[in-house]
Amino acid sequence: MMPHMTAQNLHVAPWPSDSTPESFTKWVDTHLESFLESALDASLGRTPTTHPPYAAPENLRECIRYSLLAPGKRIRPRLALATGMMLQLPPTAALAAGCAIEMIHCFSLIHDDLPCMDDDDFRRGRPSNHKVYGEGLALLSGDALMACASDTLLLSAQAGIAPAHVLGAIKRFNWASGPQGVIGGQAMEPLLADQPSLGFLERMFAGKTGALFVASLMLPLDLAGISENSREGGVIASFARELGYAFQVADDLEDALEPGSREHEKPHSIIYHISPPEAARRTHARLARATDDLRTVHGARAAHLASISGEVLKKLDRYQNT
Amino acid sequence: MMPHMTAQNLHVAPWPSDSTPESFTKWVDTHLESFLESALDASLGRTPTTHPPYAAPENLRECIRYSLLAPGKRIRPRLALATGMMLQLPPTAALAAGCAIEMIHCFSLIHDDLPCMDDDDFRRGRPSNHKVYGEGLALLSGDALMACASDTLLLSAQAGIAPAHVLGAIKRFNWASGPQGVIGGQAMEPLLADQPSLGFLERMFAGKTGALFVASLMLPLDLAGISENSREGGVIASFARELGYAFQVADDLEDALEPGSREHEKPHSIIYHISPPEAARRTHARLARATDDLRTVHGARAAHLASISGEVLKKLDRYQNT
Repeated sequence: MMPHMTAQNLHVAPWPSDSTPESFTKWVDTHLESFLESALDASLGRTPTTHPPYAAPENLRECIRYSLLAPGKRIRPRLALATGMMLQLPPTAALAAGCAIEMIHCFSLIHDDLPCMDDDDFRRGRPSNHKVYGEGLALLSGDALMACASDTLLLSAQAGIAPAHVLGAIKRFNWASGPQGVIGGQAMEPLLADQPSLGFLERMFAGKTGALFVASLMLPLDLAGISENSREGGVIASFARELGYAFQVADDLEDALEPGSREHEKPHSIIYHISPPEAARRTHARLARATDDLRTVHGARAAHLASISGEVLKKLDRYQNT
Repeated sequence: MMPHMTAQNLHVAPWPSDSTPESFTKWVDTHLESFLESALDASLGRTPTTHPPYAAPENLRECIRYSLLAPGKRIRPRLALATGMMLQLPPTAALAAGCAIEMIHCFSLIHDDLPCMDDDDFRRGRPSNHKVYGEGLALLSGDALMACASDTLLLSAQAGIAPAHVLGAIKRFNWASGPQGVIGGQAMEPLLADQPSLGFLERMFAGKTGALFVASLMLPLDLAGISENSREGGVIASFARELGYAFQVADDLEDALEPGSREHEKPHSIIYHISPPEAARRTHARLARATDDLRTVHGARAAHLASISGEVLKKLDRYQNT
């Protein structure tokens, strides 16, 4: 028998009835962390089990929990939840999508911090995973999180989503987390020195940062059975791409404008290719237009997504006159 | 738009009409390698693409191809195909399941060879992946193969399998490739020194080797919509577990009986716990009984699975009197 979440711990309250930012934030704060932890536990199996499939061993559980349950901004699940609420998806399905993406994000950070990649000793102010648990277990915990993530996305089927729609979401999820998404973007990084063009950099952005941002908004769309070729879905797809891009550009600008920064000498930064104010202006214009389109089509229900985009626009605004 | 295999390159010939071992072997030799390569290409995306999702970058493609398309025994896909033919599954669905498992097997070998794990410079007589492409790209290619594998399993939906059955297979696939399966088994290895019991070792075997063997036989079962709680499915599940276990024991015995071997001093080897002839005898008896049960229920159609098990039984036989 496959272990799975029971109906009881899958149950979450309905979406907030009013659409104020406060209600939404409170709802997310109440449900997100506990769902993430329950989904992880379910995908690791219950202990002790006496016959296969055996639950994950203790060392691996602890190592995964250290990174996944560390305090974080949870921007990707928040995007998934804002989209899910906009589309009136069952809350559990939106949580499943958001937490699956957070697990992929976490896996990519653990592997990225390894000595053979960026070799970072710290992550979010704490020692990075391999500094605490060793490289071998850090490697395995990243690997494990990919399977946990897919397992978590499957919870949407238990929330009443049609199997065919779940399959569509899994297809996109594989794209976003795989060689055409996050991992592809990471593999492009060493190639940039030989192909230092803005076009190539933007392809890398689309994989490294963009893919999971896009998935955060598009998995709820897939689960709702809405095509990205419809007008309703198309504006979400464009908004998702622009938001992911803008998020990365704002990040680059923040790094670049630190005193003594040498980011402008590195082809993996946007400002190697265009000046900071120009990068900010262009990106701001693109995201602002996509946000307007989203609002035009989805109306008041787009408020939470628009407010997340508003924060990025504000950041970019600050850099337009630097 | 998500890139996907077209109906054309998904098309494979029907199963061989007669059930001789020669026809089956010929069928497998004709279809398996080309399907594996096509499925990989599909999951990496077509090049060049001018907007997202972008196809996987060249360096990553080459690195993955180096390991996945290297000559191998393909024992796991052969098991999936033998089971699929036994259950009269659409051939494409059985190929999708078998190739997905081969990709997971390949990912686990690439990561296992890394310096932070077993630190092996050679694999199947050729330099291991990281010796050729560097540790960073080897890491990423293993990561990528997990997503490719899931994507390949999804091809079964295009072969006419009901979405709900595909979801069942994905659930099991996540279990087999994740922290309750292969990865869990690998994480248990360092714990063995502190818990050197036969029971703990058998749990490790169930993850490290067993999980993918079990999945090779059970994914076709899931895709056929047969419950493992039915008599038909139950004998396959037991056979799968015993075959995976016997395969690992035979492997341990082979290593142990090499001249000068010190395997009996290592708790990760079966012969640290019981003598070689005793291990061979016990394991032989268990697999022989499971094979008989499989034959009783599935009759002549079980011939190909029984012949694969026959090879392992022959090997164990040799060690019964050592």
